[in-house]
Amino acid sequence: MKVITGVIPKETLEIGELCGREPDDSLIRVNGAVHAIRDMGEVAFIILRKREGLLQCVYEENVSEFDLKDIREGATVEFAGRVNREERAPHGVEIRIRTARILSEPAEPMPLQISRRKLNTSLEAKLNNRAVSLRNIQERAKFRIQEGITRGFRDFLYSQGFTEIHTPKLGAKSAEGGANLFRLEYFRRPAILQQSPQFYKQMMVGVFDRVFETGPVFRAEKHNTKRHLNEYTSLDFEMGYIDGFEEIMGMETGFLQYTMDLLNREYAAELEILGIQTPRTDEIPQVRFDEAKQMVAEKYNRQFRNPFDLEPEEEQLIGRLFKEEYDADFVFVTHYPSKKRPFYAMDDPVDPTYTLSFDLLFRGLEVTTGGQRIHDYRELLDKIAARGMETEGMEHYLAAFKHGMPPHGGLGIGLERLTMHLIGEENVREATLFPRDLSRLEP
Amino acid sequence: MKVITGVIPKETLEIGELCGREPDDSLIRVNGAVHAIRDMGEVAFIILRKREGLLQCVYEENVSEFDLKDIREGATVEFAGRVNREERAPHGVEIRIRTARILSEPAEPMPLQISRRKLNTSLEAKLNNRAVSLRNIQERAKFRIQEGITRGFRDFLYSQGFTEIHTPKLGAKSAEGGANLFRLEYFRRPAILQQSPQFYKQMMVGVFDRVFETGPVFRAEKHNTKRHLNEYTSLDFEMGYIDGFEEIMGMETGFLQYTMDLLNREYAAELEILGIQTPRTDEIPQVRFDEAKQMVAEKYNRQFRNPFDLEPEEEQLIGRLFKEEYDADFVFVTHYPSKKRPFYAMDDPVDPTYTLSFDLLFRGLEVTTGGQRIHDYRELLDKIAARGMETEGMEHYLAAFKHGMPPHGGLGIGLERLTMHLIGEENVREATLFPRDLSRLEP
Repeated sequence: MKVITGVIPKETLEIGELCGREPDDSLIRVNGAVHAIRDMGEVAFIILRKREGLLQCVYEENVSEFDLKDIREGATVEFAGRVNREERAPHGVEIRIRTARILSEPAEPMPLQISRRKLNTSLEAKLNNRAVSLRNIQERAKFRIQEGITRGFRDFLYSQGFTEIHTPKLGAKSAEGGANLFRLEYFRRPAILQQSPQFYKQMMVGVFDRVFETGPVFRAEKHNTKRHLNEYTSLDFEMGYIDGFEEIMGMETGFLQYTMDLLNREYAAELEILGIQTPRTDEIPQVRFDEAKQMVAEKYNRQFRNPFDLEPEEEQLIGRLFKEEYDADFVFVTHYPSKKRPFYAMDDPVDPTYTLSFDLLFRGLEVTTGGQRIHDYRELLDKIAARGMETEGMEHYLAAFKHGMPPHGGLGIGLERLTMHLIGEENVREATLFPRDLSRLEP
Repeated sequence: MKVITGVIPKETLEIGELCGREPDDSLIRVNGAVHAIRDMGEVAFIILRKREGLLQCVYEENVSEFDLKDIREGATVEFAGRVNREERAPHGVEIRIRTARILSEPAEPMPLQISRRKLNTSLEAKLNNRAVSLRNIQERAKFRIQEGITRGFRDFLYSQGFTEIHTPKLGAKSAEGGANLFRLEYFRRPAILQQSPQFYKQMMVGVFDRVFETGPVFRAEKHNTKRHLNEYTSLDFEMGYIDGFEEIMGMETGFLQYTMDLLNREYAAELEILGIQTPRTDEIPQVRFDEAKQMVAEKYNRQFRNPFDLEPEEEQLIGRLFKEEYDADFVFVTHYPSKKRPFYAMDDPVDPTYTLSFDLLFRGLEVTTGGQRIHDYRELLDKIAARGMETEGMEHYLAAFKHGMPPHGGLGIGLERLTMHLIGEENVREATLFPRDLSRLEP
C-alpha cells in the first residue's frame, strides 16, 4: 500500500536557503519564472522571479551547457548551478548556471513591461491585465503587506481570547437594511448579500464573549470614487464585558501596534520594495466629533454644511490637522451623532443625541467604524420603535438579547482602505487584487 | 489631548489567570453569564459561563452581601470574591462570592436547557434557536475546533511560503460554469456568485507561486442531504513548481499533521468536552480510483453502476475497508476518470482517460478535491475545444497561461465537512454556525 507521510521535500532551493548557505563547488538547483534577460555578449543575466524575490542567475558562454536563445522571458525554468556571493546582486547571492530545464513556455510576450521596477502604466491597464501586472515586484509586494495586516489582525485577536467565526453571506434580511443591498433569488425566495456580519457577530458575543471574522461584504452603493468598492474584505470584531467603548479603541490600537511590528519583522523586504515606513501607533489621539469639526473650521477657516456627519474633505482636514499638530497618522473621532448611526448604537447617557461610537481616520480617511452597542432587550426594542422600524426579520437577532447579552461593542475595518494608505496609494483599487465597482465585474 | 496607547487592561480575571494564581485572602473580580444556579439552601452554586469554560462560584448566606434571588439564569454579572482551590470544581478552582454587580438581565427564560451537558433537542430546534443553543458548552466547543482547523490551515501554509489572497465572490462568469450558480443583477448586468476561487487562485500562482484562501463559496445545488450546504467555507490552496501531484497530497498531509498537533496542544479542553480524539495522520494510504472500486466490490460483494464516479455509499465502504484493513481514517483516492473532472484537470500521460487528481476521504466522506492542473496554454485551449466549451468569459484566466505559468496544482477542502467528521457528527449542519440549505436562509 502506497502512503503519504507528510510534506514531500523539494530539492530546489529558495532564496532564504541560498542566502544561509556557505558557498562551495556543489551544484544546486533553483526554479522560477524568467523575469528579465540582460544579454551582455559572452555573459547574460537571467533574473528569476521567485516567491521571496528576484534571483540573479548568470549564463556564461563556455560554462553554461545550453543555448541562451532557448530561454525566453515568461518561461518557467529549473537551473542547476553554483552559488556565488555577489554583493551587487539582490540578496547578495547569484547562481552561475550550468544546465537548464524548461518547465513551461509562454505562448506570447508580456503585454506590460513587468520587469521594470515600477509599472509604468495606468490603473486601468493594470486591472485589465491583472494576471500579468501583479507579476511586477512592486505590485505583488502590496498584497504581501495586505496579507501581513490580515494575519496581524487574526494573530493578535487569538492572543486576546477571541474566537474566529464564519457567518453566512446569503440571508433573508440584512443587519442595517436599506437600499444598498444586492438582491437575488434563493430557491424561489428573495435573498440578499450581507453588507456586514453585524447581527451575527453580536449574536456570537453571547456565545464566545469575543469573536472576529475576516470575510467579504457586499454593498450595492452607486458611488464611483477612489475609496469605494462594491465588494470588499471586512475585518470585524466584537467583544463582550466592556466597561466603556474606549476598550474597543484600545483593542484596535493593540492590533495596529502588533501588526506594524509584524510587518517590520516579517515583511521588511516588501516594505523596502515599496519604499515605505510603518506609521506611528504608540499613541493615537482621540477627539470628539463636534470638537474635531470645530477645530477644522477654525484652523482652516472652512465651514461644512452637514452638522451630523463628516464630509470626505473634512476628514482629510482632520487628518492634516492631527498630522501637523501632533505628528499623528491615526486619529479616533468619537461621539458621532445618534442620527447618523444605526439603531443598535448605544447613545451617550450624558447626551443621547450623540453615541458611544467612533471612526478611525488614517491619514484623513475613514478606515474603521465602531462603537458600543445596546445590550438590553427592551432598550433595543424602544430604539427600533422610536426609529419607526419593524422588527420583522430581526427575530433571531433579537432573541439573543431577549435571553441575555453582556455589555459589548466592536468594529469593522476596511482591509483595502487600510492597505491603500499604508502602501501610500490614493485609489483603493491599487490595494485590491480584483476590484468590483460600478463598471468592473471582471476579471 | 486624550490618547489611546494600546489594549486597556481588565481588572476582572479569566479562568486561566485564576488557575495560575496562588490562593490568598484578597478579593478578585470575575465576570460571566449565569449559566446555571444550584440552590442547596444556605449555600448555592452559581455557574458562570466564560469564554474559557465554566467557573463555579459559591454563594453563602452569611458571607455573600446580596440576595440570591436577584441573580437569574441568563443574566451577566460581575462578582467580587476570594479564590478557593476545589478539586471537584471545573479547572480545580472556585470563587467564594462577596459582592455581585448585575451587568445585564434577560427579558425571558431560555427556550432550551442549555446548561445540560448535552443539548437534548432536535437539530431543527437547535438551528431555530441558534443564538441560544450555541451557548451550550458542547455546541460551542464544536466551533472552537473549527477555528483550530482554519487556524492550522493558515499557519501551516504561511510556514510553507504560501501567500494569503482575497478573491471576489461576485463575478461575470464562474470557474466551472453550469447550472449550480446563484445568479443576480449587478448594476444592470448579469452576475453570479463564485462556486470556487479556482480561476483566481490559479492566476495568482503565476504571481506568488503558492497561494491560499479561506472564504465562502456558493452552490445552487438542489441536494437535500446530510452532507450538502448551499454556502460553505472552502479552504483552498494552489502551488506552483510541482514535480507531481503527490506533492499536493503531501502538503495536505502536512496540514493535517500540523492541525491535529495544534488541536491537541491548544484545544485540548474542547476535545475533552466533546469526548473526541484526533485521528491518525502519520501515514495516509493512497489508492487508485479503479483499484478502490474493485477492492470494495470484492470485499463487500457490491457492484455500483457508475464506472466514472464514486457513489456516496461506495465512498463509505472505501472508508470502512481502509479502517478495517489499515486502521486509516483518511485515504487518498487518486486518478479519477477524466470524464468526471473539470477541463483544467491534467490528464495522466500514461492513460489520458484518467487524471492526475485525487479526493481525500475522511471516514468515508469526501472532504477534499484536488489535483494537478494543465499549465500549457495550447493544451488548455485544446482541452476546452475538445469538450465543446467556449473560451468566452475566460479571457483573463487564459491570459495567465498565455504569458507563462509554472506546473501547478492545488485543492479545496470543505471546512464544515472536515469539522463534522472530526467532532463525530453525521450532519454537516451540526458543524455550521448558520447553515444555508434548500429550506434555510435564516437565521
